[in-house]
Amino acid sequence: MSVVLQKINSSVRSIRPMQDTALAQRAGQIKEELRQGVKKPYIKIIDLTWGDPHRHGLKPLTFARQVLAACLYPKLLNDDTLPADVRQRAQGLLSECQGGSMGSYTDLPGIPQVARQISEFIVRRDGGVPSDPESILISPGSQWALQNILSLLVHGSDSAVRSGVLTPLPSHCVSIMSVVGLGGVSVPYHLSEEQGWEVQVEELNRVLEAAKQEYDPVALYVINPGNPSGHVQSRKSIQDVIRFASEKRLFLLADEVYQDCIYKDNIEFVSYKRVLAEMGPPFSNTVELASFHSASKGFLGECGLRGGYVELVNLDPAVMKHVFTIFSKDNAPTPGQIALSVMASPPQPGDPSYPLYRMETQQMQTLIKDNVRIVHEVLNSLPGVSCQPVEGGAFAFPIIYLPPKAIRKAKELGMEPDTFYCLRLLEDAGVFFSPGCEYGQKVGTYHIRFCIMATRGTIEETLTRFAVFHTHFMDEFS
Amino acid sequence: MSVVLQKINSSVRSIRPMQDTALAQRAGQIKEELRQGVKKPYIKIIDLTWGDPHRHGLKPLTFARQVLAACLYPKLLNDDTLPADVRQRAQGLLSECQGGSMGSYTDLPGIPQVARQISEFIVRRDGGVPSDPESILISPGSQWALQNILSLLVHGSDSAVRSGVLTPLPSHCVSIMSVVGLGGVSVPYHLSEEQGWEVQVEELNRVLEAAKQEYDPVALYVINPGNPSGHVQSRKSIQDVIRFASEKRLFLLADEVYQDCIYKDNIEFVSYKRVLAEMGPPFSNTVELASFHSASKGFLGECGLRGGYVELVNLDPAVMKHVFTIFSKDNAPTPGQIALSVMASPPQPGDPSYPLYRMETQQMQTLIKDNVRIVHEVLNSLPGVSCQPVEGGAFAFPIIYLPPKAIRKAKELGMEPDTFYCLRLLEDAGVFFSPGCEYGQKVGTYHIRFCIMATRGTIEETLTRFAVFHTHFMDEFS
Repeated sequence: MSVVLQKINSSVRSIRPMQDTALAQRAGQIKEELRQGVKKPYIKIIDLTWGDPHRHGLKPLTFARQVLAACLYPKLLNDDTLPADVRQRAQGLLSECQGGSMGSYTDLPGIPQVARQISEFIVRRDGGVPSDPESILISPGSQWALQNILSLLVHGSDSAVRSGVLTPLPSHCVSIMSVVGLGGVSVPYHLSEEQGWEVQVEELNRVLEAAKQEYDPVALYVINPGNPSGHVQSRKSIQDVIRFASEKRLFLLADEVYQDCIYKDNIEFVSYKRVLAEMGPPFSNTVELASFHSASKGFLGECGLRGGYVELVNLDPAVMKHVFTIFSKDNAPTPGQIALSVMASPPQPGDPSYPLYRMETQQMQTLIKDNVRIVHEVLNSLPGVSCQPVEGGAFAFPIIYLPPKAIRKAKELGMEPDTFYCLRLLEDAGVFFSPGCEYGQKVGTYHIRFCIMATRGTIEETLTRFAVFHTHFMDEFS
Repeated sequence: MSVVLQKINSSVRSIRPMQDTALAQRAGQIKEELRQGVKKPYIKIIDLTWGDPHRHGLKPLTFARQVLAACLYPKLLNDDTLPADVRQRAQGLLSECQGGSMGSYTDLPGIPQVARQISEFIVRRDGGVPSDPESILISPGSQWALQNILSLLVHGSDSAVRSGVLTPLPSHCVSIMSVVGLGGVSVPYHLSEEQGWEVQVEELNRVLEAAKQEYDPVALYVINPGNPSGHVQSRKSIQDVIRFASEKRLFLLADEVYQDCIYKDNIEFVSYKRVLAEMGPPFSNTVELASFHSASKGFLGECGLRGGYVELVNLDPAVMKHVFTIFSKDNAPTPGQIALSVMASPPQPGDPSYPLYRMETQQMQTLIKDNVRIVHEVLNSLPGVSCQPVEGGAFAFPIIYLPPKAIRKAKELGMEPDTFYCLRLLEDAGVFFSPGCEYGQKVGTYHIRFCIMATRGTIEETLTRFAVFHTHFMDEFS
């Protein structure tokens, strides 16, 4: 018997693997079978389970990659095939790195220029609401920052009462939240699918009161635009949530990483920070808020570089000291910080890089908007499938009305019904979607999730395969 | 009263800030004063507290930076000003990234080619001892990997008995170990300064037996080459430690990030993995070992990119599943993985990049060896200073025999005596070293730590300022 096995930490034992589901394993096997020449009705698996645009064939923005190359290989600063604004940006960033190298550790909160650019970006985004660079902490991704903030808030078994964090259901990070656990508890509140996955204050209230019996609710986690829901919260809805958090003295954790991805013309993203400021006292100067953003999401899509940030509002200076301490445990990678610089401060009209940057982002925007339209049309044209409008974010999360026979079959196999459905979709059509049970859903409902940020060809091929599969599946189990 | 402040997690409260000491704050103030034109006996602070070669003016390796630039901006693949082997390496790495982009998340254990290269590097290093790429996990730095492994091993207050980890004293990461805490306990064992900071098995034994009264010792953490000690363990010493770990059923955590930095001609680095394999059964097939390495250290020095790995030996497959789960929580940044690729598989004789690579690494090696020689000579020529040989690593850690008057003065000021000494050194000479109390030291002894990886000019200027300051200080308090 090994030393570790007897002793493995129990909270680690309870972590659910993320890339190690039966579905992911089967996808790996099928890829291998295809490589070995096994005949299938398809020659390639399409995997849309990741919120990772480059993985699905979208291209990085040229300006971002040119700045990265020049920062990492400064000889390119003398290369006039690179636009002048690229070289200027790189020079500016390098001048704020220790020893002039991207290879040095950066001090907190990150490269100072990047923190300033993020702060200015927030001010512009929020119509002039002030933002202090000293309240911004750059990290190796938004989820990392979220974990840090949670580690401050959540008490585990060392405390008389375990801490609870209200978490949307469905949510992209149920597993992360429970991991973070630190012994804390994720308290799920249902989003209302019938109302386009809206947050409902009555539901928050119901869940909070029930949780209080057992736990100490300390924070409310919201995801806007929704993942996987695709819902974008209105100003009114955000006001309601803030009022609720204020009344119940909950710390607000706002995951806003898809803020640049809005697909409906009459809808705009409004940040929690802005609404909070506009509500005025007592809200604006008391409600504690952490707002998370990332260079991985949106049109930049630089997941591999690892760069995110959190802006903190209304935290006591004594608490901020602990926040700094906990963020100083690790440095954000400099390439991720460069990506954040480009996200926060893209080329402006008149800059040499602007025309190309504008073309690339507009093409991307048009592509994704069209993807969303096509996805919506196809899904809602299929019997037994219904998809709420994808107003923002990166995912469609349609409900599948599975026939009772299919549900029975799944249960015979010891599987969740939507996992069974996704496994068949993978097996028969070579399309890899995630089942709703991985995100949480109302009992007795079944969903699938897939990323809509992909090339047109991929989306069309996916929908064609999906439509054929779904029709056969419904026939088979009707 | 803010919501968080009342509720802040107690184990977070106990974390000691790393960049937030009185010394670091004063260094920041002095920099600001110098900027504002305040007259001082120096025009610039020299900060050698970081193990960060680029920060201290050393240059990145050209091959590494060219590969990075080509990977991030693949248009450069067609640029024949870049050597053919650079373009080939970049093409190979990109072909194993999803969507052909460094902007995608990588699956565990990282970019497959990088894991293979690391595995081959280990086999070469260890004279043919096999290494399985599936036992290697790439992470955003070696400390991150260490934290993950500790989180598996260490039980906190949820357990009847708290876990203990034997940790060298002095050690560069006392604070990290206690942070990791997870409620676990760091059990310090003294290295023997008189024996050049050797690990002594009697001391391990003494500490273990004492710890058993209160805790459950689960692991033994060793740092070789030592940080801050500069000691390099002999094969014999490693054998002794392995025998001890085997007998006491301790998991071995070997921090070997400075393995490429050896400065004495008759000394070589031997890995724990190699010695373990060469000892044969029952050791070689039972002792559980995690060996950590990093792209931040050595001559590459790419701290800012964040790339490290751990190789695991003799872990039960059931335990490896948990390891994979916990590492899948976050992806290693792709640029850090590229740096690891270059570290593990540098240009070879015959490759177009080899001559420049060889010249750069040899120059670096000569520079650091000379730095070590000069540091040693100057330190040991000063009364009241004594420095053990710096055989490897990145730091000198001399003992300072402080006069009783200085110790009394420090105590009056409520300071550790070596903090007082470092504060005066900073104030009077503009030289920023860390006090030994930050790393742990035998009661009644006082040390300073500084990085020896810096340009010749920096080292010479530092030693000149230091010698003058030290002489004055000793006079003042004699």
